[in-house]
Amino acid sequence: MKMEDGANKIMRQSEQLALFSSMQGGLTRAYLTLEHAQAHQQLGTWMQQAGLETWQDSVGNQWGRKVSANPTLATLIIGSHSDTVSNAGKYDGNLGVLLGIEALHALADVELPFHVDVVAFADEEGTRFNTTLIGSSSVAGCFQPDWLKVKDKQDVTMAEALESFGLQANLVGSDARNAQETLAYLEVHIEQGPVLEERDLAVGVVTGIAGAKRYQFTLKGMAGHAGTVPIDMRQDALCGAAEMILAIESYAIQHDVVTTVGKCDVLPGAVNVIPGEATFTLDIRSLKQHILESSTVELLAQLKKIAQRRNLTVQSEQLYQAQAVPCDPKLQKLWAEVVATETGTPAFYLASGAGHDAMVMTQITDIGMLFVRCEKGISHHPREQVLQDDVGVALDCLIGMINKMASEYTK
Amino acid sequence: MKMEDGANKIMRQSEQLALFSSMQGGLTRAYLTLEHAQAHQQLGTWMQQAGLETWQDSVGNQWGRKVSANPTLATLIIGSHSDTVSNAGKYDGNLGVLLGIEALHALADVELPFHVDVVAFADEEGTRFNTTLIGSSSVAGCFQPDWLKVKDKQDVTMAEALESFGLQANLVGSDARNAQETLAYLEVHIEQGPVLEERDLAVGVVTGIAGAKRYQFTLKGMAGHAGTVPIDMRQDALCGAAEMILAIESYAIQHDVVTTVGKCDVLPGAVNVIPGEATFTLDIRSLKQHILESSTVELLAQLKKIAQRRNLTVQSEQLYQAQAVPCDPKLQKLWAEVVATETGTPAFYLASGAGHDAMVMTQITDIGMLFVRCEKGISHHPREQVLQDDVGVALDCLIGMINKMASEYTK
Repeated sequence: MKMEDGANKIMRQSEQLALFSSMQGGLTRAYLTLEHAQAHQQLGTWMQQAGLETWQDSVGNQWGRKVSANPTLATLIIGSHSDTVSNAGKYDGNLGVLLGIEALHALADVELPFHVDVVAFADEEGTRFNTTLIGSSSVAGCFQPDWLKVKDKQDVTMAEALESFGLQANLVGSDARNAQETLAYLEVHIEQGPVLEERDLAVGVVTGIAGAKRYQFTLKGMAGHAGTVPIDMRQDALCGAAEMILAIESYAIQHDVVTTVGKCDVLPGAVNVIPGEATFTLDIRSLKQHILESSTVELLAQLKKIAQRRNLTVQSEQLYQAQAVPCDPKLQKLWAEVVATETGTPAFYLASGAGHDAMVMTQITDIGMLFVRCEKGISHHPREQVLQDDVGVALDCLIGMINKMASEYTK
Repeated sequence: MKMEDGANKIMRQSEQLALFSSMQGGLTRAYLTLEHAQAHQQLGTWMQQAGLETWQDSVGNQWGRKVSANPTLATLIIGSHSDTVSNAGKYDGNLGVLLGIEALHALADVELPFHVDVVAFADEEGTRFNTTLIGSSSVAGCFQPDWLKVKDKQDVTMAEALESFGLQANLVGSDARNAQETLAYLEVHIEQGPVLEERDLAVGVVTGIAGAKRYQFTLKGMAGHAGTVPIDMRQDALCGAAEMILAIESYAIQHDVVTTVGKCDVLPGAVNVIPGEATFTLDIRSLKQHILESSTVELLAQLKKIAQRRNLTVQSEQLYQAQAVPCDPKLQKLWAEVVATETGTPAFYLASGAGHDAMVMTQITDIGMLFVRCEKGISHHPREQVLQDDVGVALDCLIGMINKMASEYTK
């Protein structure tokens, strides 16, 4: 019964937390805003009610600590983020923070061989400034001082926003954690994808966070009159792009990568003119960095061949890249044992295609993540939804995980 | 030598005519504008110098007649248009008018069994008003009175523009020709495509003007996160569109149709979001109306199957259609004989993918068209270019054709 009470409370707190928003009838909560301060005040209150010591750090993260009377191990950090995208759902990030607080509340009377910190990272989404993962970057010691000059849409710099929030811009990152004092980082997060729902599972163990590369391709052929240039004399840039888009899809079906062509534009773009130019983007991800690297090389070579055969020129520009980050194998194994115990079925493993604070925390410590099923995989949208029963399972797993680490890591 | 002089003159006249333009350093001449009146005045002068009787008709077409002393046959009409697209080339339409005048000039001393009218149609391109082929429609008796209310970008109605030009809106079409008084309609026009250049031919006999249909397709799938939705669980509208675009291209390669997908748009159109919606257009043409009809049905069925297999919905909207118009077989044969005589090589036949005034003139008479090679098939562009030698060949052919009709049609 105790666990069900916890899930109930978290569902109620999720609704309450979603009221700290800059928009009427929806949830938008950006870094260092008034509603963000209010949300952290509320989280601080709940942390204190859970018996935690609380503080705000140099970048605005909200912390709570379950103090160990006799810490023989470094500190375990449990966290996720409290900021949101525009017109967001209630569970992305916030659910992980609330689960952390409630797990420590449930363990209030249990003596652990380490401090446990729960943290609400103040920025993960990058909604306000042109940079993401600001909160965890400060903790992991990789906050870039240049970021302080970045301006929001109202021309307010991050430094000014920090000062308005009651912080000192010059001190950001001064309280970064290091590897020696950190045991591990755990994060529970909604899946933001449809896989767990498809398999009828409440939770899944995350194997790692996929690396990603993004490209833009520009194909040039020859524009011409739709009626007067025979098919076999054309250099149709859009037909070339179409063949490439299908080749990319086929490649992803056959290999261990996930690809998306999200944009496609055509010039001159008239119903009766043969496309002389086409541009499209490629987002390619893989959990394994070496597969990401080799697949990208192979795929780009395929696209080049298609262009040559069609007498088109192709230019590619890399827009972005992020390294693949594996979750710690030992932490994966412990999560799996806990999941099997709590659900009565073997744990299911899955990769994270989206980025998370854990990706940054890997700079200073091992990371372990658990995903919670969300309805239809919908996220970054007001329709984001989780089942209370699944939240209960996730809470049981997190409590079980902390207990298991207490015994496993002292061996 | 005489013929070469004619080609020289036409090249010079083309340059001169191109100066009647609304733009500096380029050619734009829209229907019923001052520069259009000036161009027709110039054409009228040249017609008179060629020994023709001249007049302007109810819709603003400029006419010149080589009068027969003893006409035993109906009147032969030779024409093309004198209006241009924006930032046009010098030869589209205008070349056919100048060739007609010069051919009649060359035949000044020849007695023919029919009047020969050369006409500069005042609007074919539809640059000014939202309707094309206005000039020939008036002559062929299919001018729609509703068109008089159509407004240009300056909110001037066609009726007002006609009055400003010195015409009476209520009389437009009152001087339409009919089948009884018309022997045939001949038109010489630049190819606007690359086929003659590819085959190293100065001219080609046109078999007909392709019919065309245009559609817009809207595919709907499911948008999603590029990182979290596995490839096999996606309903990617752009991948569906890509497969359809390639299917359309394959169909055209295997069948007697020409297809173009000129536009393609994606929603939401972000690098890291799976496309939930894609729209694209299809332009499909065929010289044979029954093939156009059956191919469209087959192709639409193929696209529907692709959508079903990919779990996408597809909606199609027809944007436009024009019937295929064959050139008269006897006129094709006569053109071919003339071309063989003048060039020493067998005539090459080709279809017109673009529309022409002949398409409308078929309402009242048989049509016969000859295409002239243009550089790289470029048209509707300042770089539109023809060779003077080819103009000479076309002029010889047109003169030969008029002579041949004089003998063949009196048999």
